Amino acid sequence: MPTALVPTAPYAYPKSRAAFERATRVIPSGIYGHQGPSEGLYIPQSSFPLFSSRAEGTRFWDLDGNEYIDYMCGYGPNVLGYGDRDIAAAAEAQAKLEDVVTIPSSIMIDFAELLVETVESADWAFFAKNGGDTTTLAIMTARAATMRKKIVFMNGFYHGVDQWSQKLDYPGVLEEDVANNLYVDFNDIGALERLLSDNRGQVAGLIAQPYMHGNFIDNALPADGYWQAVRRLCDDHGVVLIVDDVRAGWRLDLAGSDHFFGFRADLICFCKAIANGYNVSALCGRESLKETVSSISYTGSYWMSAVPFAAGIATITKLKELDAPALFRRLGTDLTTGLTAAAAGHGFDLHVSGAPALFYLRIADDDSLLLHQEWVAECVQRGVFITSHHNHFINAALTDADIGRTLEIADEAFGIVRARHPELG
Amino acid sequence: MPTALVPTAPYAYPKSRAAFERATRVIPSGIYGHQGPSEGLYIPQSSFPLFSSRAEGTRFWDLDGNEYIDYMCGYGPNVLGYGDRDIAAAAEAQAKLEDVVTIPSSIMIDFAELLVETVESADWAFFAKNGGDTTTLAIMTARAATMRKKIVFMNGFYHGVDQWSQKLDYPGVLEEDVANNLYVDFNDIGALERLLSDNRGQVAGLIAQPYMHGNFIDNALPADGYWQAVRRLCDDHGVVLIVDDVRAGWRLDLAGSDHFFGFRADLICFCKAIANGYNVSALCGRESLKETVSSISYTGSYWMSAVPFAAGIATITKLKELDAPALFRRLGTDLTTGLTAAAAGHGFDLHVSGAPALFYLRIADDDSLLLHQEWVAECVQRGVFITSHHNHFINAALTDADIGRTLEIADEAFGIVRARHPELG
Repeated sequence: MPTALVPTAPYAYPKSRAAFERATRVIPSGIYGHQGPSEGLYIPQSSFPLFSSRAEGTRFWDLDGNEYIDYMCGYGPNVLGYGDRDIAAAAEAQAKLEDVVTIPSSIMIDFAELLVETVESADWAFFAKNGGDTTTLAIMTARAATMRKKIVFMNGFYHGVDQWSQKLDYPGVLEEDVANNLYVDFNDIGALERLLSDNRGQVAGLIAQPYMHGNFIDNALPADGYWQAVRRLCDDHGVVLIVDDVRAGWRLDLAGSDHFFGFRADLICFCKAIANGYNVSALCGRESLKETVSSISYTGSYWMSAVPFAAGIATITKLKELDAPALFRRLGTDLTTGLTAAAAGHGFDLHVSGAPALFYLRIADDDSLLLHQEWVAECVQRGVFITSHHNHFINAALTDADIGRTLEIADEAFGIVRARHPELG
Repeated sequence: MPTALVPTAPYAYPKSRAAFERATRVIPSGIYGHQGPSEGLYIPQSSFPLFSSRAEGTRFWDLDGNEYIDYMCGYGPNVLGYGDRDIAAAAEAQAKLEDVVTIPSSIMIDFAELLVETVESADWAFFAKNGGDTTTLAIMTARAATMRKKIVFMNGFYHGVDQWSQKLDYPGVLEEDVANNLYVDFNDIGALERLLSDNRGQVAGLIAQPYMHGNFIDNALPADGYWQAVRRLCDDHGVVLIVDDVRAGWRLDLAGSDHFFGFRADLICFCKAIANGYNVSALCGRESLKETVSSISYTGSYWMSAVPFAAGIATITKLKELDAPALFRRLGTDLTTGLTAAAAGHGFDLHVSGAPALFYLRIADDDSLLLHQEWVAECVQRGVFITSHHNHFINAALTDADIGRTLEIADEAFGIVRARHPELG
């Protein structure tokens, strides 16, 4: 028997705000990137907490002690649940032996072998720290392998913050940094065909996310046959096909998001969910490019840290045991179906886009997105942490009860927004 | 009373070699960077182990169970001793609370405040993962602040592997990547003065290590007054002065290597020893550049991991308690004085260069460096891990007894090389 829902008092954030004041004195922007209030994803800013104090499973607690069911998962890394005991145990056991040492631990080989066994496009693995380390190595590899310069990007792309992947009007970026970048729309195979013909013999690589999971815009899955046509065009033009699976990787398909969409990348970039938050990234790829990768001068101080390798092995192993992509699909579908129904119950049209494991939300009744931001704010202030203009993430610690509670709060939030806007009729 | 020295049987590496065979199948180069046998620092290659199994204090053990007193310290990160309990305890306590979360832990602020309090040139701190993340952000900041393009490098530089910091003839590097790089010799203030005059109004930044600690060459400290003259020239020309303290940082001076040499950098890059191996780097700098840094699009998946912040706070705190730079100077001086004496006892002229905490070695009797490589090989195969052509690192777990044992092995190795070469007279 359903209990009567008691309206939740909205959260307040005095300690978060005070901490942010401290932060702005000693850290540029106070908090940078997505996590910062300047990014434009946390809108309205006043509705969001800024600093956390504890995290466990699918939840975190902010500095003021407010509790959240978290649908951002640290922007991806939290794939099994914050502080998952199996992963922590593997990391702790490795830490007792060694981490960063003059010569690497042989656990690096174990992790590479596991990735090669798991990821369809992987004949080898190269480890680094950032997603951007792997996308940069990928384009350098494409250039070294082809002796060509140009790289094709999909409009709306994000491949990290290295200079080649930024835009000309961004501070600190030179025209030289982006002089060899070509841009095309995702899902427009005709445009890609023309671009490659117009630049015949000059294109080294094409880099793309497996589908468009951009900000401020509905996410776009590939059209039927799109990736297969891209693969064919790349083969015809001798272009290295690079999949940036940093965000979607391990959530759609453990064999790689290229495998999920029925094609094979030449190079595939992993980070975020690869080790449940332990710091490691990996470029994987085909045998034909292995020698080229070897020729590139590329290393870093922490790239052979053993603890993240142990965590990565435990993470991939547990994701397999759980059949995690299927679990994420079911949880994401249950959640978004429920959200859409809750919206409809209050006369709102909630659009869901992208894969269920990385769902993107937009209330479509209002082109300004302000109504959507209002609803997000009411959810956050009641313990459901979502963002206004970024895809979300499902983790394996999320339960049906969590989804049930989320839907209760979302329903309450829709009701509040509806009541506040009698003009909407 | 000294005990008679029993000659040490040279080590063998069958398990390391077998593991490397496995590694080459699934990892480009098997092992990349300095740690790999292809780098040319581990010469002769057959004398070195390739994979480790355990590390503690100043020692590690290779896959074959051979024990080493380690003077490479993971190429810098091991500053307090492998697995230091104080640092591990701080990291474990933080890990129980949270690590990578959707909004950062406020421990990020604590760490930034500690760096600002500790480092003379630091009015703020920006955290990332690689040393190269910080050198790249530094040159982007210099360009954004000055609206100029060119960057001055010191010949023999190393600032990571980002494309702008590589060389034109390296695979995957374009002429556009290095088109705005200018090069000058370290310690040649006249040449720098001419370079800045010839490029008046075009130079955004000058990036340099605090002294030249390059490979295959004696390390060079700054000439008297050199850095002060560089600082003056940078001021005169409106050039942002960037110190890459990734390698030397925290070993020369906890207030920064610029402070050690009596000048103030505008931006200073830290990594390696900042958290005793936990994965974090930091760009620190002057108030006048804080807003510019804030304007740059720069973030990463793991850049706000809380565990490395906790480790960093514990590391810097312990380095202060130990007065670690003074300790490193004494240990490094005792060791290198002893090595030089041991060499002389066998008629060899061992040159020591660089700071004692990061000493560089070369047997000067032989320009081919082959004699030096022979001696290094005999040391390594008896448990003293040094390399032929790279600076070394001192850590705080090194004891006088370790140095004593090192000198015994070094002496034995000098004797072996001497006996093998009667032609040297």
